[in-house]
Amino acid sequence: MEELEKQMESLKAQIDATGNRMPDNKVSLIVFSGDLDKALAAFVIATGAVAMGMEVVMFFTFWGTPLLRDKKKKVSGKDTMSKMFGAMLPTGAKEAKLSKMNMGGMGTMMMKSLMEKKNVSSLEGFIELAEELGVRIFICEMSMDLMGFKREEMIDYEHKTYGGVAGFLEEAANSKIQLFI
Amino acid sequence: MEELEKQMESLKAQIDATGNRMPDNKVSLIVFSGDLDKALAAFVIATGAVAMGMEVVMFFTFWGTPLLRDKKKKVSGKDTMSKMFGAMLPTGAKEAKLSKMNMGGMGTMMMKSLMEKKNVSSLEGFIELAEELGVRIFICEMSMDLMGFKREEMIDYEHKTYGGVAGFLEEAANSKIQLFI
Amino acid sequence: MEELEKQMESLKAQIDATGNRMPDNKVSLIVFSGDLDKALAAFVIATGAVAMGMEVVMFFTFWGTPLLRDKKKKVSGKDTMSKMFGAMLPTGAKEAKLSKMNMGGMGTMMMKSLMEKKNVSSLEGFIELAEELGVRIFICEMSMDLMGFKREEMIDYEHKTYGGVAGFLEEAANSKIQLFI
Repeated sequence: MEELEKQMESLKAQIDATGNRMPDNKVSLIVFSGDLDKALAAFVIATGAVAMGMEVVMFFTFWGTPLLRDKKKKVSGKDTMSKMFGAMLPTGAKEAKLSKMNMGGMGTMMMKSLMEKKNVSSLEGFIELAEELGVRIFICEMSMDLMGFKREEMIDYEHKTYGGVAGFLEEAANSKIQLFI
Repeated sequence: MEELEKQMESLKAQIDATGNRMPDNKVSLIVFSGDLDKALAAFVIATGAVAMGMEVVMFFTFWGTPLLRDKKKKVSGKDTMSKMFGAMLPTGAKEAKLSKMNMGGMGTMMMKSLMEKKNVSSLEGFIELAEELGVRIFICEMSMDLMGFKREEMIDYEHKTYGGVAGFLEEAANSKIQLFI
Repeated sequence: MEELEKQMESLKAQIDATGNRMPDNKVSLIVFSGDLDKALAAFVIATGAVAMGMEVVMFFTFWGTPLLRDKKKKVSGKDTMSKMFGAMLPTGAKEAKLSKMNMGGMGTMMMKSLMEKKNVSSLEGFIELAEELGVRIFICEMSMDLMGFKREEMIDYEHKTYGGVAGFLEEAANSKIQLFI
């Protein structure tokens, strides 16, 4: 009898161990691209997943980072290189362009007018929706550092954290779905 | 004794719960790109996975959608915007181009002739193979709507479904491997 | 009593089965892109994951393959097509370019000088670091064959294997995180 109980204990421990290693009901997205089309795909997946009862974390890195800049916020004291990057990259989601068929902006304009006509939210709208739905956002500190972005110029967003790859990997390792977009 | 049996019941329930949450032996691929090279990579993975006994679902969205149009099928009654998109995007896999080194089509031609020489199937061939192997295909309805594609102009394919992000997420959450291509 | 023991046996078997199907503490990355920025992202994730105690496998395919060529190694006996591909693609990580804002090489130069200033390792440095940390590398044989690369022109790297999609899928199916970069 005692032995049986011991075995039971051991079985429970194994189940607990398994449980801890089980991927949660979570989705982790790396938003590496700053293109309008890819960012839209990321937010369609993110908001769709929340609607299905999943938890979502988005990790904005490299070209994805400038999508989260706030056009209304001005920062001073940047060096020349940072100013150049700042000027060349989109200031916020509204300036994002299609990865294909941009055609000097005409393709992007066409897509945006189509989205409005077909009742698909704009990228800015999707960011607001994501915030309301509780989607958490990580912003890659290394990318911000390289591109010379300051925290003061990023959008207000409730569940926003600045972090590195370790933060992402921890979330991703406990997620059911991970995508590099 | 009775208590032991109760514990056993509870252990079994936990194992069942774990089992239900376990990722299946399935691969979910999002084919966002319409580039020849990326679409090829998607189908190499898809058909390879089936060969290894895995189940495969491919979700075609955005630029990936026009790859599944059938050149032989004509549809009428499109508005101007839809006609423009229809004309600018590839009509089927045969018109897909390399993402790099396309060089006005010369690079793509070179790659295709190399593939033939090295006995690598064409993209069209891979789609047929995938159908034979039972790879399931989802086509994103939002993308079709935005680009003005109609169901009547898509290729015949046995395991073809039209759907949205919820359909993909359901498959992906029960998959071992998920990739955004 | 005997029945209880039998049930126990069955429970244990189920746990073992579950254990075998559990994703390991492993990360599998497909490096499809040959762009400096995306390759950097791949290595930041790879080395970060090892630092967190995870095992990492990188699968280099298509445009990612030429990043692993060694500029110092010369091979002869290539046909015209292979020579052309060889000349047009980067010879090693040092020649990789940004996917955006390359601006005839100026953007890439700016990014590299920024990386040095901010103490971010170069791509070549990251490859060495990955080797030291025990990151395993798979090189796609089909890509090498298509682009006419020979094994003799690839970099020395301790944990390097040549293989196909089956090798990747086996690793990926046992990984917690899989990304297509």
